[in-house]
Amino acid sequence: MRQAGRYMKEYRAVRAQHDFLTLCKDADLATEVTVYAAETLGVDAAIIFSDILLILEPMGLKLAYTQGEGPVIGNPIRHERDVKKLKSVIAKDPLPFVSAAIRQTRRALKPEIPLIGFSGAPFTLASYMIEGGGSRHFIKTKMFMYTRPDLWHALLQKISAALIQTLNAQITSGVQAVQLFDSWVGCLSPADYAQYVLPHSQRVIQSLKPGVPVIHFGTQTESLLELLKKAGGDVIGLDWRVNIKAAWQRLGTIAIQGNMDPTLLFSNSTEIRRQVRRILQEAENRPGHIFNLGHGVLPQTPVDNVKVLIEAVKEMSAR
Amino acid sequence: MRQAGRYMKEYRAVRAQHDFLTLCKDADLATEVTVYAAETLGVDAAIIFSDILLILEPMGLKLAYTQGEGPVIGNPIRHERDVKKLKSVIAKDPLPFVSAAIRQTRRALKPEIPLIGFSGAPFTLASYMIEGGGSRHFIKTKMFMYTRPDLWHALLQKISAALIQTLNAQITSGVQAVQLFDSWVGCLSPADYAQYVLPHSQRVIQSLKPGVPVIHFGTQTESLLELLKKAGGDVIGLDWRVNIKAAWQRLGTIAIQGNMDPTLLFSNSTEIRRQVRRILQEAENRPGHIFNLGHGVLPQTPVDNVKVLIEAVKEMSAR
Repeated sequence: MRQAGRYMKEYRAVRAQHDFLTLCKDADLATEVTVYAAETLGVDAAIIFSDILLILEPMGLKLAYTQGEGPVIGNPIRHERDVKKLKSVIAKDPLPFVSAAIRQTRRALKPEIPLIGFSGAPFTLASYMIEGGGSRHFIKTKMFMYTRPDLWHALLQKISAALIQTLNAQITSGVQAVQLFDSWVGCLSPADYAQYVLPHSQRVIQSLKPGVPVIHFGTQTESLLELLKKAGGDVIGLDWRVNIKAAWQRLGTIAIQGNMDPTLLFSNSTEIRRQVRRILQEAENRPGHIFNLGHGVLPQTPVDNVKVLIEAVKEMSAR
Repeated sequence: MRQAGRYMKEYRAVRAQHDFLTLCKDADLATEVTVYAAETLGVDAAIIFSDILLILEPMGLKLAYTQGEGPVIGNPIRHERDVKKLKSVIAKDPLPFVSAAIRQTRRALKPEIPLIGFSGAPFTLASYMIEGGGSRHFIKTKMFMYTRPDLWHALLQKISAALIQTLNAQITSGVQAVQLFDSWVGCLSPADYAQYVLPHSQRVIQSLKPGVPVIHFGTQTESLLELLKKAGGDVIGLDWRVNIKAAWQRLGTIAIQGNMDPTLLFSNSTEIRRQVRRILQEAENRPGHIFNLGHGVLPQTPVDNVKVLIEAVKEMSAR
C-alpha cells in the first residue's frame, strides 16, 4: 500500500515537478514511480500508482489535493439534486489513463511481479463525496445515511456502478489482483455496516471479471471481519489492531493480508524485526498470508526502515 | 460522558464568561454545570465536570486549551530529562479543586443520583504528554515506546502514581464510581497493549480504594476487550464499533457500558429510538448493562436529541 510515496526522495523529486493529480493522470510518470518503488524496495508485488478517489472526477465531482489537507471535493454531495446529477455509467473505461499506466507498468515490470489495481470502496468514496474531504467523526456522512436512507442507497448504487466499470477496466488492462479500499468503514457499527454498506460492496465484488483475486481492505474493522468476508473478496486486509491468528480463526478459509503497524517503521531495525517475527509466528506460516502493513506507509517514514521490513519478511517467512 | 458541554446553550453561556481551565478549577462553577446537566437531561448518574488531563499540571506540564485545537502541552515529554523532571508524588490531593467540586456536587445532587469521578488512563495521558496535544497516528508516542521502552515504563510509572493519588482523592471526596478514560489506546495492537500498557493500568486499578466500582473505558478497543478486563475494572466501556452481545459474550461475567454511536444524536427521534431498541435487544435486558454512548457527546449535537435518547432508554429498558 502506497509503495511509491512521499517517504521516497526520488518520488519527492518527481512530485516537485508535477502535482499529485497530474502524476496520477500521466501514464508514463505513473509507470515510472510504480516500477521504481517496486524495484527499489524489492517487494513481491507492485501496486499501481493511482488514488482511491480518481473515479469521483468522471462521476462529476471536482477533485483537488491541497498541501497538508489531503483531498478536497469542490462540489460535495449534500442534497437530492446532487445525487441525481452524479454520473454513474460514464464510458467503457472511466479512467483511461489508469488503464494506460497499468498496460505500461505490466510491460515494464518483471513478469514474476504481480501488479495490483485498486479503488476506494463505496462507503469510503461516499464519505469523501459527502464530507467534501477527510473527516474525523463522519457526521455529515452518517447524517445522510441515517436521515435519508433512500438517497444514501441511491448514491451508493451510483458509486458501485462506476466502481465496477473502473475495476473491470483495470482487470482488462492487465492487473493480477484488485484491492478495494474501504479505509474508513471502521467508523460504523456492525449493524450499520450490514444495513447501509454490505449490499453495495458485495455487488461491486460480485460484478468483477472472474480470475483476478480481490483484496478487501479496511481499517478499524475488528468487529466487521465476518461481514467484510460476507461482502466478498479472496483476501481480507487486516490492520494492526487485531491479533492475526485470532482474526484468521474467525475468518476461516480465506487468505489474509496484514498486519504490521505502519508507525513501527519510525522505530529501528531491532524493533521492526522483533515485530515481524511476532506477526509471522502468530500467522503460523499458514499458506495464504500476504505480509503487509495494516495501512499505508506514512509520509515521513524513513525509507531504510521499509527496506529492513521487507528484508526481514523475506528472511523469516516460509518460502 | 461529557454531560455538560458545548452542545448545551446554558453551558456555552457559562463558558462565555470563563475559559475552560478556570471552569474546571472553580468548584462552584464545576458544581453548577455538573448539577445543571444531570438535572436537565434526567440521567440516572452524573459525571463531575472536569477533564482527563488535569493531573498533568501538578506533574509539571503546562496545559492550555486552545479554541478548536483542543489541549496543548507547552513542554511536552521528549527526552530522558523530561521524564526525570516529572513529579509523581505531589500532595495528598494533587487536584484539591476537583475534590471540592465533588463534595459540593454530592451535596447538591439528589441522593439517588450517583456521582462519577474520572481521569485519563496512563497510555492516553502519556500520548498527550509526548505528542504535546491530540494526535492522529501517535507517531511520537509509539516511537518513544518502541525505541526507549525503559523510559516509557518509567514515564507510565510516574503517571500511574499520580493517577492513584487523584482517583483516591476523588473517592475520598465522595464519588460513587470512577471512570478511567483510555480514550486513544485503540491505536495499539493487542501485543503492544499487553506489553507496554496493561501492567500500568492494572496497577492503577488495583491501587484504588475498595468499595467504589471502576469503569474502564476506551475506543477502538474491539480487539483489546479481554486485555482491558484483565487490566481491571468492574465495568468495561464499549464503543459503537462492536456488537454489544458479542462483546459481552467474550467478556463473560462483568458489567458493561455502552454503546451507541454519538453521531446518531445528529439524526432524528425515529432513528435514535430504532437504534436504542436494537442495542437494548442485543443486550437482552441482561443485568449489568449501563446504557451510554460509545464516546462523548459531540460539540454540535442538538440537545433535544440527547433528551430523546434518555427518554427512549428509560422507556424501553427493564426497570
